[in-house]
Amino acid sequence: MLNAKYQSCIEACSNCAIVCETCAASCLREDDVKMMARCIELDRDCADLCALAAVLMTRDSQLSREMCRICAQACRACAEECAKHQMDHCQACAKACRQCAEECEKMAA
Amino acid sequence: MLNAKYQSCIEACSNCAIVCETCAASCLREDDVKMMARCIELDRDCADLCALAAVLMTRDSQLSREMCRICAQACRACAEECAKHQMDHCQACAKACRQCAEECEKMAA
Amino acid sequence: MLNAKYQSCIEACSNCAIVCETCAASCLREDDVKMMARCIELDRDCADLCALAAVLMTRDSQLSREMCRICAQACRACAEECAKHQMDHCQACAKACRQCAEECEKMAA
Amino acid sequence: MLNAKYQSCIEACSNCAIVCETCAASCLREDDVKMMARCIELDRDCADLCALAAVLMTRDSQLSREMCRICAQACRACAEECAKHQMDHCQACAKACRQCAEECEKMAA
Repeated sequence: MLNAKYQSCIEACSNCAIVCETCAASCLREDDVKMMARCIELDRDCADLCALAAVLMTRDSQLSREMCRICAQACRACAEECAKHQMDHCQACAKACRQCAEECEKMAA
Repeated sequence: MLNAKYQSCIEACSNCAIVCETCAASCLREDDVKMMARCIELDRDCADLCALAAVLMTRDSQLSREMCRICAQACRACAEECAKHQMDHCQACAKACRQCAEECEKMAA
Repeated sequence: MLNAKYQSCIEACSNCAIVCETCAASCLREDDVKMMARCIELDRDCADLCALAAVLMTRDSQLSREMCRICAQACRACAEECAKHQMDHCQACAKACRQCAEECEKMAA
Repeated sequence: MLNAKYQSCIEACSNCAIVCETCAASCLREDDVKMMARCIELDRDCADLCALAAVLMTRDSQLSREMCRICAQACRACAEECAKHQMDHCQACAKACRQCAEECEKMAA
């Protein structure tokens, strides 16, 4: 399959996109939304960058590596912010982002 | 051009997607984010549905009409919520959503 | 979690989006691209609709059901076309589309 | 408005995304699809990267510049391929891609 070599990174990105969307939607329903505003911003960017990184790798695009490099930056920033909050959705998001960052950094290397 | 017949609806959807993204991002930076939480939720859905509706029409997809029908629902819900808030980004969003809803309802008819 | 009830449908849609992208990209690299043109069109629409359906369910959007109804239509059309072609990527895509259609039809019911 | 400074680049990216989608869909309906296969691949990547670049700028994301840097690469590659083909949709796409590349290169600088 044309994208078999990217399989673990595609899966990490697809998973991270969904976990970030879940975190953003959950943050929006917290009582103290203000405290979560930066988290929501970073979740949204990370979700969209992960989704597109997964798609580009799936297509075996020549821009996959470049995209993974940005995606890793988004994941690191999102993980750092999410790690500050104790809610389950933030802790799960920090974990998925770190795992995705590692996969993307390997791809970009 | 294969999609010339959809031109005004494609433009309304593309424009509405950007205006909804602007509104969501602006709401997240308001002092009272809590008051804007529902607006942000509706902005996000509306932005994503408008963007995909524009893409499907651009491709002359056979699901364009169905997509415009849902998109109009998202636009109506977002316009109603945005109209409650006095900020410029919300008022601009309500207007773009109403215009897009009208175009999408014509397409879906 | 706010979207736990949609878990199996979110997973089916996420998986189907990636499998459709793989199929489209693989079709484009076949010797007889002409024969695959309709398959590529349907793959692309199905991939994008599945991806957005997954996102809307993840957000617990009130338009999730409507979106799943369209998504099921896209999956059925794509499965029917892919089933005509013997390549592994088409057969895998037909299977993922049928599974996703079933999940989406349950959601939309 | 939070993204007024990016206005011309957001517009160039939004426009280029739609023109690339139109080109891909039109290429798929040409008699000699095989000859257009590489064009379709590049159109798709360029469309998706432009769409996300527009969204990130709209949100005033801190990754906007990085994204515009990749987006410019996609636009240059797509313009080069499209310029080889005489069809109106390819010539229009080459032009939109060059204009978008210039805007994105200014942003990334």
